[in-house]
Amino acid sequence: MRLAELSERSGVSTATIKYYLREGLLPQGERITATKAEYGEEHLRRLRLVRALIQVGRMPVATAREVLDAAEDESLSENTRMGAAVWALPHGSEPDEDDPGTARAREQVDTLLGRLEWTYCQELGATSPAYRMLVSAIATLDRLGYPHGTGHLQLHAGLSAELAVADLDLVETYTPQERIEAVVALTVLYEPVLLSLRRLAQTEESHRRFDT
Amino acid sequence: MRLAELSERSGVSTATIKYYLREGLLPQGERITATKAEYGEEHLRRLRLVRALIQVGRMPVATAREVLDAAEDESLSENTRMGAAVWALPHGSEPDEDDPGTARAREQVDTLLGRLEWTYCQELGATSPAYRMLVSAIATLDRLGYPHGTGHLQLHAGLSAELAVADLDLVETYTPQERIEAVVALTVLYEPVLLSLRRLAQTEESHRRFDT
Repeated sequence: MRLAELSERSGVSTATIKYYLREGLLPQGERITATKAEYGEEHLRRLRLVRALIQVGRMPVATAREVLDAAEDESLSENTRMGAAVWALPHGSEPDEDDPGTARAREQVDTLLGRLEWTYCQELGATSPAYRMLVSAIATLDRLGYPHGTGHLQLHAGLSAELAVADLDLVETYTPQERIEAVVALTVLYEPVLLSLRRLAQTEESHRRFDT
Repeated sequence: MRLAELSERSGVSTATIKYYLREGLLPQGERITATKAEYGEEHLRRLRLVRALIQVGRMPVATAREVLDAAEDESLSENTRMGAAVWALPHGSEPDEDDPGTARAREQVDTLLGRLEWTYCQELGATSPAYRMLVSAIATLDRLGYPHGTGHLQLHAGLSAELAVADLDLVETYTPQERIEAVVALTVLYEPVLLSLRRLAQTEESHRRFDT
């Protein structure tokens, strides 16, 4: 298809597509004349992913390009290529090493990961941005004097594990070629789904308990 | 306690406390001389909540003040007072009414709420920012061509409901006086916990399936 059709089918303006091409977020089309190029289904798929990363994941363009480079780097394991986007998502503030609660939170996270037998996450430890985000969130609960018992965390973790199984079942319905793009997009696109459903569930439950 | 002690016990600088007092985020202490005031445990508790809203919930100061005003407004039902913070959290982009996928997404959300028998959320409908956030998130999945079947959403919703029950059980351990502050703070503070645990769970599950 030509640029105009790619724009129409993706809902992305031709100006934005040209910008993505220049920035290397989208591979060049096959040149057919000096000024015209032909684009395929893979360009359409890639454009969707780019929009997911930038518009929903709020990644800067340079970060999105790094994620896409990693996703395509065949020298990396499939798992690493899939994880690249999660790694690059904004993770909020880093743990504050001056806060004595940070060391306690780290111990608690390690205990939790041990109980859950999430051995890969244990190995990754603080190199994983999601691990540091969790440490920081727990240290904040601790500093502000709110409860953060391992039991309550374990419940959240158990339900997260159920979601991860369902999400990856969904990912496995894709062809291996599409799979990496799918996992990247679904990770990003389902975060607002989860947060909004939790807020709705809380509204409903709070109404049941406290509206008289 | 005096300002200096309030600062030490809360970890908030005296300059920031004075700023919060001026902005009405913190009630004035009991004046004991022309230049000195006495603060109590309720100031300490409030200060924690303010930090949760501003630092973790990323609320602008003016929004945080509205949330606190609503939480204290005894003419509102307890449920409304509790919900005020969730209502005021950033909810991402609003549904795009020019996108035909938005109407489809709204129908899907209504079907989902019906199946879940979340009747209070059904009543609130699009007046709830979390409802609009969910519609927008599903319309995005639709527009980008990613799966968003009601079954998959229902799983996310069911697990969110389990979390809401556990979260509100925790809230009920507080005295009625502290309860509104607790639900506000816990809603905000557990969002990064949940997101980071989901990312970790996905990393672990992805490693199990795809790392060879």
